Order: sequence, then C-alpha cells, then structure tokens
Amino acid sequence: MRYLIRYSYDGSKYNGYQKQPRKRTIQRELEKALKEINANKKVLVSSSGRTDKGVHANNQYAHFDLVINIKPNNLKRALNSILPDDIYIKDVKEVSDNFHARFDVKKKEYIYKINIGEYNPIEKDYIYQYCKDLDINEMKKGLIYIEGTHNFKSFVKGDDYEDYERTIISTKLEKKNNTIIISLIGTGFMRYMVRNIVGLLIEVGEHKYKCSDIEKILKAQDRTKAGKCAPACGLYLEDVYY
Amino acid sequence: MRYLIRYSYDGSKYNGYQKQPRKRTIQRELEKALKEINANKKVLVSSSGRTDKGVHANNQYAHFDLVINIKPNNLKRALNSILPDDIYIKDVKEVSDNFHARFDVKKKEYIYKINIGEYNPIEKDYIYQYCKDLDINEMKKGLIYIEGTHNFKSFVKGDDYEDYERTIISTKLEKKNNTIIISLIGTGFMRYMVRNIVGLLIEVGEHKYKCSDIEKILKAQDRTKAGKCAPACGLYLEDVYY
Repeated sequence: MRYLIRYSYDGSKYNGYQKQPRKRTIQRELEKALKEINANKKVLVSSSGRTDKGVHANNQYAHFDLVINIKPNNLKRALNSILPDDIYIKDVKEVSDNFHARFDVKKKEYIYKINIGEYNPIEKDYIYQYCKDLDINEMKKGLIYIEGTHNFKSFVKGDDYEDYERTIISTKLEKKNNTIIISLIGTGFMRYMVRNIVGLLIEVGEHKYKCSDIEKILKAQDRTKAGKCAPACGLYLEDVYY
Repeated sequence: MRYLIRYSYDGSKYNGYQKQPRKRTIQRELEKALKEINANKKVLVSSSGRTDKGVHANNQYAHFDLVINIKPNNLKRALNSILPDDIYIKDVKEVSDNFHARFDVKKKEYIYKINIGEYNPIEKDYIYQYCKDLDINEMKKGLIYIEGTHNFKSFVKGDDYEDYERTIISTKLEKKNNTIIISLIGTGFMRYMVRNIVGLLIEVGEHKYKCSDIEKILKAQDRTKAGKCAPACGLYLEDVYY
C-alpha cells in the first residue's frame, strides 16, 4: 500500500532533508520510524524535494510503500508517537501505486522571513536577523521581474541541471511589524534558487542593485552576476500542490 | 562604575538564569563575557530576578560594577561580540552606585503563549503546544479574580517566602490566529507563580474549574488546591519597570 504524508519540521536541528551517513536528517528519522511500523522492513521515503540544512517546512510531502496495511489515521498516530518532537505528521492518506511525491508536483510555495528590526535571539533560527532597514518598495518592484518563465541559471548553485527554465507563477511581499515575508509560488525550484533570489532582493532593498538589474542578471545566466545567498534559517517550504 | 543592561535571551538553550556548577546559564555567560571586558577581574551580575530553565526574556535587566570605565555604547558592542547569539544586549546605561536591578523593581510584566491550533514543531520551544480548544471567555473572566492584592501561596512552589502577598496590577488575554497570549503585570512574582496561574486558567478553559473557583483557591493558600503548572517554554519575561 502506498501512502502520502504531509508533515512539518524544524530544520534548525537537522543536516537537511536527505539521508547522509552518521548525520541527523529528516529522511533518516522518517525511515527509521517507518521501519518500526513496517514489520521491521526497510522503507524508502520519497519527498516532494529536498530542503537544505537549516531550512524549515510547514507543509512537506512524501510517499512510501508499506508491506503492512494500516489505516491512515492510525499510521499518523503511530508515526507521531515514534518521531522526535521537531517533526510532525499533519496528515496521512492512501494513494494509488503510480502516485509520486516528486514527479507529480504541480507547484510549490516557499516563504522567506527577514527581521528588519532589532536582533532577536529568540527568532534567530527561524527568521533571518538582518536588523537594518530595507527599501521594501524597490524589493516589491524587483519581485515583478522574477515572475514568469525564465532561465534561472544566475540563481542556482552548480551545474547539476539539464534545463534551468522554471516558471514563477506568483510572488508576494508583505511586512508584519518588523518582519518582511516574501512568498514565491512556482512550478519548480532548483538548489539555492529561493535563497539566491532573496539575497539579490535584499541587495535591491539596500540600493546596491536597481530592481531593473534583475532583468539583466536573469539574461546573463551566470551565478557570479547575481547577489548574495540569503541564509537558510529564514526559508520555509510552505506548501506543495499536486 | 555601575551599569544597567537591558537584554533578551532564548531560554530554551539554558538551564535557567542562575549560576550553577558546570551548567550553561544566562548569569554564567554574562559574567564570563564581562570578566573579559573588565581587565579579567570577576564581575557579579545582579538581575531583576531569576528565570527558570526554558523560560525566555524579551526585556530582562541586570546591574554590575566594572573596574574599568567604558562608554555604554562600546560596552554594548563589546558584550554582543563576546556573548553567544542566543543572548542579546539591547541597551546599556550608567546608573548611580545605589541603583539595584532587583530591589528597585517597581513592576514586571510576564507573558505566556499557548497554541490552541495544530501542533507546530517549529514553535515547540517558544509557545506551549496545547493543541486543543479552550474556552477563552471563561479564562478572561478567571483572570479578573487574579487581579488585585492577594496572598498567592496557592500559586507558589515551596515555602521560601516570608510574605506571599503580591499585587497584580493588570491582566490581558488576547488571541492572535491560534495563539492565546496572556499578560500579567504585577509588583512582584514568586517562583512558578505565573506558570501556576496559567496552569489553572487552562483548566478553567477546559471547564475543569469554574472561573469563580479561583477566588476560593486564592483564599485556601494551599498549592495542592490549585491546578497544574504550565510548561516553561510558553513563558516570557516581557518587561521590568523601575
């Protein structure tokens, strides 16, 4: 039986999503817990995508097959009782054998949080403590250049992809008290893409770049032309749509 | 020269405020950092009061004397560069030699945060994950019985105090999305007093106690008559007034 889980986690306590030898990762914790439930047989968990070290998820998804038959609600309860308290299974459902948590993704939403007020030690692992003022109007204008279908090579780390074209369906920037929240909804995201976009937007907010520079940087298809990479702690996988 | 500092910290990473052998505490970190600045001479830090293990502070205060003379702003910068990133010095000022951060307190505000929505692993060290509904109107009515001058022995752990009379000047309960925020401003608080008050209020919100029971419980002056103690993670020392 194939199951789809929706779950959240505090990425600050993990070395990212993907399994690595001797490291605490989300995938490792999930597979360890599922093995206990699955008559001690190994389970391979396929997520909608990886998140890097320090990145959080409010709604991440993964599928896996079990040799046992267990009701979704019982599986949810069993998993939450075994998993550490910084991972939480929000929802479990049965899916057909051809469903795939990564290949079937239609779109994803990421959000990024920036504190432009005083440094707050209580938020430091959850909101990027930038702690200076930013020109929000320029950043909002900059976001418009990101929307649409572009080659995003200037915003990606490494050369691992065959095709760097992706579509950003919509963007939003809002300010709540001293926190800027940037949302990006797109058909697909590559490694460090959101953090590199946010890093450049911050430099637009600092007037180091003009918002119209974003158009040129996209055209350059060259990582060295864009700005800094924003830190992992401010990034959340907000939701995945199938 | 005597200095007064205003600072914040993430209590989830500490064994409380007060120095203890071989344990990471706020006082120990402050005194260690100050010794470096104070020509390697030991510094005794006197705070407005202790906070227990896991309790946070948005605005805590402490005074100390240094043998060196350093401008407040330079002291702030020096301290923040030495201290770990989960303690932050917000403000430093010079005060007279007879100022005392504990004895001169006029009033204090504590806040307590409760999540009544779905469990959130990202908030677990910062908001009490209660995760069930509560009757907020009954809790608000209950808070009114707490206001005023009372003997709070029913809400205090242990027998360490000579006098259990304290005055709660004002209280507030508000709901933001799924988070209940309770604020208590008072002339003085004893050990576990806020957490014991909140613990009982939660049981009022569960209809295990009527709000009017609070009056009887105060009169009983007996800890065993009151409700549970709310967990440390939801509690913040919000401010101190001199």
